[in-house]
Amino acid sequence: MSATSATRFEQLLSSRAQLGRQTTSGVWPTVPTKYEFGGGKPDPGSFPYDAIVAATGKMMAAEGAQALTYGETLGYRGLRELIAHKHEVFEGLKVDPDNIMVANGSGHALSLVISAFVDIGDAVICEAPTFSGTLNALRRHGADLHGVPIDDEGIIVEAVREKLEELRRAGRPCKLIYTLPTFHNPAGPTATVARRKALVAVAQEYGTMILEDDAYGELRFEGETLPSLYELDDSDGVIRAGTFSKTLGAGMRLGWLLTPKAILPSLQAFNFGGGVAPFTSRVATYYMRDNMENHVAKLIDVYRSKRDAMLQGLWEVLEGTDVEINKPTGGFFIWIKLPEATDTQKLSALAREAGVGYVSGNLFMPNGGADRHIRLAYSYESEENCHSGARYLASAIREALA
Amino acid sequence: MSATSATRFEQLLSSRAQLGRQTTSGVWPTVPTKYEFGGGKPDPGSFPYDAIVAATGKMMAAEGAQALTYGETLGYRGLRELIAHKHEVFEGLKVDPDNIMVANGSGHALSLVISAFVDIGDAVICEAPTFSGTLNALRRHGADLHGVPIDDEGIIVEAVREKLEELRRAGRPCKLIYTLPTFHNPAGPTATVARRKALVAVAQEYGTMILEDDAYGELRFEGETLPSLYELDDSDGVIRAGTFSKTLGAGMRLGWLLTPKAILPSLQAFNFGGGVAPFTSRVATYYMRDNMENHVAKLIDVYRSKRDAMLQGLWEVLEGTDVEINKPTGGFFIWIKLPEATDTQKLSALAREAGVGYVSGNLFMPNGGADRHIRLAYSYESEENCHSGARYLASAIREALA
Repeated sequence: MSATSATRFEQLLSSRAQLGRQTTSGVWPTVPTKYEFGGGKPDPGSFPYDAIVAATGKMMAAEGAQALTYGETLGYRGLRELIAHKHEVFEGLKVDPDNIMVANGSGHALSLVISAFVDIGDAVICEAPTFSGTLNALRRHGADLHGVPIDDEGIIVEAVREKLEELRRAGRPCKLIYTLPTFHNPAGPTATVARRKALVAVAQEYGTMILEDDAYGELRFEGETLPSLYELDDSDGVIRAGTFSKTLGAGMRLGWLLTPKAILPSLQAFNFGGGVAPFTSRVATYYMRDNMENHVAKLIDVYRSKRDAMLQGLWEVLEGTDVEINKPTGGFFIWIKLPEATDTQKLSALAREAGVGYVSGNLFMPNGGADRHIRLAYSYESEENCHSGARYLASAIREALA
Repeated sequence: MSATSATRFEQLLSSRAQLGRQTTSGVWPTVPTKYEFGGGKPDPGSFPYDAIVAATGKMMAAEGAQALTYGETLGYRGLRELIAHKHEVFEGLKVDPDNIMVANGSGHALSLVISAFVDIGDAVICEAPTFSGTLNALRRHGADLHGVPIDDEGIIVEAVREKLEELRRAGRPCKLIYTLPTFHNPAGPTATVARRKALVAVAQEYGTMILEDDAYGELRFEGETLPSLYELDDSDGVIRAGTFSKTLGAGMRLGWLLTPKAILPSLQAFNFGGGVAPFTSRVATYYMRDNMENHVAKLIDVYRSKRDAMLQGLWEVLEGTDVEINKPTGGFFIWIKLPEATDTQKLSALAREAGVGYVSGNLFMPNGGADRHIRLAYSYESEENCHSGARYLASAIREALA
């Protein structure tokens, strides 16, 4: 019976679902590890457990009936006002809450944009490497991915221009340029203002949209906040995604889009159901109203210390080798480039033995490559574990170099 | 600037987004009303405000770190176990938690199924009338909708067979049969066991899938629970959607699919982001574990009384007319058929004047019609308001009949 029925539903699947069955995007490490440097999970020690329970009580007393029924299409207005306020606090950017649309996490937010713009076979430009979750969503939508390299100053805009020109000559529009200008995941760099301006200009020139992913912007350890692409653009050409996953808790599943108003209905059209997260939106709002600045300041200290501990552990063992290790000025990740001679299979076996989880670079590549890169997240483990786990991994790397 | 930029993004929209800009599905009443009989909103007086706050505290003490980080692909296992338990309690149906996938409300759950099966132009059979939210989602996916009538015993299976035969002769598969067999929204009837069996058989015979929407099944006022289509099918041919929106609170945005395991990966493929609702899933689980049966029993009393109050209000004024009013045995809605001579524009003006909100029947029709039907929700207003508001509306109907 089950063979026949499998055939039955398989024959009925949509084009995108059939695509989904064919596409895999590499294997995420699932082996239990002692040192979880794989996923970009927030620090559990910093979660404000009691304060969230208190905020829930306060919120329910004030707005319980609204929290437990269907919500507004764009999301709870109080949360959208708080998100607007956040932009002012962290960037000095004034935005209208009605340019903000709440979503179930930024993965969901990004997927709404992809659904609104990408048909199967449509061209999309993204960085190589780029965030694996979005790569996955783009592939599931059937995007034709065009990777563009990045360097220490961010996306290489001349390479973007070449791709755009190539597509134009082929008579094909580029639907989106997906970019992570700040604390790039996985590679780390923050795009300079000059690059940001150039990217916005080239997108305008070629009539394409920019999808700006800003999941980590609040968590800046050093240096000054740079203007977002959204702020630099004056042509309704940038949609920007943000999230509370890194500053409050990923389990809330609260992300948003900051977007030109004209585009909102086209994005909402893919957001089916009775409004987004009325309950959690209010819990988060009541907590963040009283605590946002202090809590984020605390998180910056926590993650900076973890970054430093991990870097120290790595360099204590790898000093004098040709291993290249970036030093991010914010966010969750360290990106490592191993020398050509590295035996990556040996490294993988040794790391597993030592219980160190990491993600190999090819998972972040739109069109392959980066086999000798690895991404480490210092966000989840304790400072101590970041140091000692990094030393174990560095020793494994040393052995794999030999 | 804005005209050019509007053109810019509009030219880049996906086929489905362009479709979304063209399709409207009637106008939902937005005028503020004294008697809100429009949407299917749960009774705010029955929300367990304090108990939910208490459950949040208890849950955070036990599982806070998991509640605030990324979650499992299928959703929190504790919730899936609770949903499995719910099926046993209310239907005597044993299901495996691994056949259950959590979603952000049942609207989201249903849209995952539609995404997995429906390409633009694909044929879908649904009831006429049917739930307006799903109609909307089907239209946004570009479904070619084939409406089939219902009567007091549920969907008319012979009409389904005719449609399927017609499609087969045209060489076109029917991707889904979307049906609400229990406490049909908007029309009220519950399909008989004979109809259920016949529908499952005809879907098997023609190799199509059934999407069973069961948003109200727990709220049965009279009679015995009937086996679901999911239970009656033995061919992996039924996907069933459920929700906590009516029994706990729509603001939690917790729904689910109960589905053959082989289909799960194809549904998950459209669920982008870091797991579904780790926080609210746990709040709901901790509350429901201790309170589900008592709370639902209380809700049944509340909604039965409201139904009776509304019916009484209607009949006190409309006795002796040709107006047809159904008496649902569960759920949230009363469906009214007005005599041919009714001046519906006059009715609409009088109802607005009296502050009575309702939804006109054509909003529920896949291919037009039902202009002389209206749907009333007795779920939201107090018992007293259900009675008095129904009298006002009934008076308006009487005037519009003259």
